[in-house]
Amino acid sequence: MTSSGIVTLLTDFGTADSYVAAMKGVLLSWHRRLTIVDLTHEIRPQDILQAAFVARGCVFEFPLGTVHLLVVDPGVGTSRRLLGARVDGQYLLCPDNGLLDGLQRGRTVRQLTELTWRPRRSGGISQTFHGRDILAPIAARLASGQELSRFGRRTTAWQPLPLPSVVRRSPARLEGRVVHIDRFGNLITNVSDGDLRRLPRRAIRGIIRGRTITRFVATYASGRPREVVGVIGSQGLLELAVRNGSAERLLGARRNDPVILRST
Amino acid sequence: MTSSGIVTLLTDFGTADSYVAAMKGVLLSWHRRLTIVDLTHEIRPQDILQAAFVARGCVFEFPLGTVHLLVVDPGVGTSRRLLGARVDGQYLLCPDNGLLDGLQRGRTVRQLTELTWRPRRSGGISQTFHGRDILAPIAARLASGQELSRFGRRTTAWQPLPLPSVVRRSPARLEGRVVHIDRFGNLITNVSDGDLRRLPRRAIRGIIRGRTITRFVATYASGRPREVVGVIGSQGLLELAVRNGSAERLLGARRNDPVILRST
Amino acid sequence: MTSSGIVTLLTDFGTADSYVAAMKGVLLSWHRRLTIVDLTHEIRPQDILQAAFVARGCVFEFPLGTVHLLVVDPGVGTSRRLLGARVDGQYLLCPDNGLLDGLQRGRTVRQLTELTWRPRRSGGISQTFHGRDILAPIAARLASGQELSRFGRRTTAWQPLPLPSVVRRSPARLEGRVVHIDRFGNLITNVSDGDLRRLPRRAIRGIIRGRTITRFVATYASGRPREVVGVIGSQGLLELAVRNGSAERLLGARRNDPVILRST
Repeated sequence: MTSSGIVTLLTDFGTADSYVAAMKGVLLSWHRRLTIVDLTHEIRPQDILQAAFVARGCVFEFPLGTVHLLVVDPGVGTSRRLLGARVDGQYLLCPDNGLLDGLQRGRTVRQLTELTWRPRRSGGISQTFHGRDILAPIAARLASGQELSRFGRRTTAWQPLPLPSVVRRSPARLEGRVVHIDRFGNLITNVSDGDLRRLPRRAIRGIIRGRTITRFVATYASGRPREVVGVIGSQGLLELAVRNGSAERLLGARRNDPVILRST
Repeated sequence: MTSSGIVTLLTDFGTADSYVAAMKGVLLSWHRRLTIVDLTHEIRPQDILQAAFVARGCVFEFPLGTVHLLVVDPGVGTSRRLLGARVDGQYLLCPDNGLLDGLQRGRTVRQLTELTWRPRRSGGISQTFHGRDILAPIAARLASGQELSRFGRRTTAWQPLPLPSVVRRSPARLEGRVVHIDRFGNLITNVSDGDLRRLPRRAIRGIIRGRTITRFVATYASGRPREVVGVIGSQGLLELAVRNGSAERLLGARRNDPVILRST
Repeated sequence: MTSSGIVTLLTDFGTADSYVAAMKGVLLSWHRRLTIVDLTHEIRPQDILQAAFVARGCVFEFPLGTVHLLVVDPGVGTSRRLLGARVDGQYLLCPDNGLLDGLQRGRTVRQLTELTWRPRRSGGISQTFHGRDILAPIAARLASGQELSRFGRRTTAWQPLPLPSVVRRSPARLEGRVVHIDRFGNLITNVSDGDLRRLPRRAIRGIIRGRTITRFVATYASGRPREVVGVIGSQGLLELAVRNGSAERLLGARRNDPVILRST
């Protein structure tokens, strides 16, 4: 597949240290005409679940042949593997720690490669920063059109990520979880539009943190002041939201809180 | 007018979620050779006044024909309109919620267009994310040289933004407001260099939060330790500042605090 | 030397105000085809030591001929000079306040220039924002291939930066300092890999905040839970770290804390 010439970066490095910029310097040193895009660097340290969720919300919007460099890597320097793969036309490079598993759900993994190639680096490869010293050079070369297969050997398995799943307790009752809370305090659940449609077509009620949600509306602005409503958000997932406010603060909600949906 | 090939983004999305990156993916999918620049994503949720102030401080520095995508959109999915316009050679795309009004003060709005064109999107257009699904595709096409008029119909009016104005209480007395507080704790007011010049040419005193300001200096570094001084900042507006310190913290100041200026 | 066409930015402006975006608009107005890269904008206001440390961690990763615009400038508008220099193939532009001194340690400064050239700007040059009004236009022109010598006159001296140094108390005892704390809570010291090697080859112990460190390991993940270990990090400096945790929080550590290393 042809590269788009774009490399994106997702890390838990924050933007106050030199780490992200060092990776960009390396990328541009290997391939001057790259386009570099930040996905986010605000993943909580070592939080692979959050990384997978945020990446799912944007990776597949990019042009086919984009290289995504995903560095949340608590095991850097240990024997954990580095992986490359093509998923729905996007190249993903990441440590083998569950992130690929979270990203590929419902999609097809192709060209799965254990990345064994190592670039030369003056001063040697740091055992604490493989993102800069190994993955960035590979990303730059992929983006310049080289084949993924050049950087390692085919492999077939990857580490699983224990994602919370939606449980159907009865034909009329689902139980999901809050999987992400965004900057607006919207509680994003793992319950999809499709999950909701499979409930019997009667009135649906949601329960979270003891609060009953009775209105499922099309837009955030359809709620009344301080009312928690259900909205199908931009990723096709049920969100619990408060108009011009924060459902997180109003409910004291946290990630992983259970959400019950009943057709009554 | 010729496009510069640059698209800028200003939102209240923050940078920890996938929203900004999703917009960038869509932009690059429509026009691979775009240059994308972040204005800021740290606008407080739904704070259109702040968005207008920050945008005014940078939008007009860009090359003519730049497309500015301004997404602070509490009414997303409702009947609020989407607007495009050309203001002093810059293309502005935003919801019709006052932001355009704040940006165009003292300038000329041309080619005002209600954006009615809708792109195709697999899975349909989300009712909660028009920035990604409608405005980004239009921005990419404008930046590739298409005409604004292709994306909707001419219109003539926009929603007003109630900006605080400077009140002249007497020939020798002005009353303004703090309209922005920056990262350094500088209190930026709506009193312009020109407003100050129109006061009688005698000693000027300022009063904010009960503190009298007697020195108006050329640079932040001209103040004495813990002294609040007046400075004409880089946007031509009066700022109250403390050398190597924070006027915000020293005075306990907040946005919208009144500032009195008297010629004595 | 040939320019890489890249300009990087390091400031203490944060990303919530218009300042960074205004600089980018000016850069692109002077040279439309620039590649702009953010190093960081999260330097604490006026903290030149932090700026020097973060810049050292990334500036020299960029392609030769990259222009680095470093704006931490408490003295803006005063008589402090603006400097340009070439250090190990990188162009550095900054106020003369110690930042260049911190960056050039162990390297060679060439073409040191006091920047006296001033661009035209409608409305004039602001006395509070030389980054936008003077340095950005120079950076854009350097990046388009103009010679540094065109923008001022040769000079030979720069302001010193009082960096903490590693003190050798005896052949078997070093005293260093924490010079940076990163987002993971790793305590980065000024003790280099080379400093450690010069200690006698016996067991080494470290002491920080009353805690004794006995294990020096290759990777963050080699520590045991809540154990503080020594690691040579990606900049070749000794770091004190806690596996999947924060040494900063565990020890209540701060920048400038002393670290003692003894060969026992």
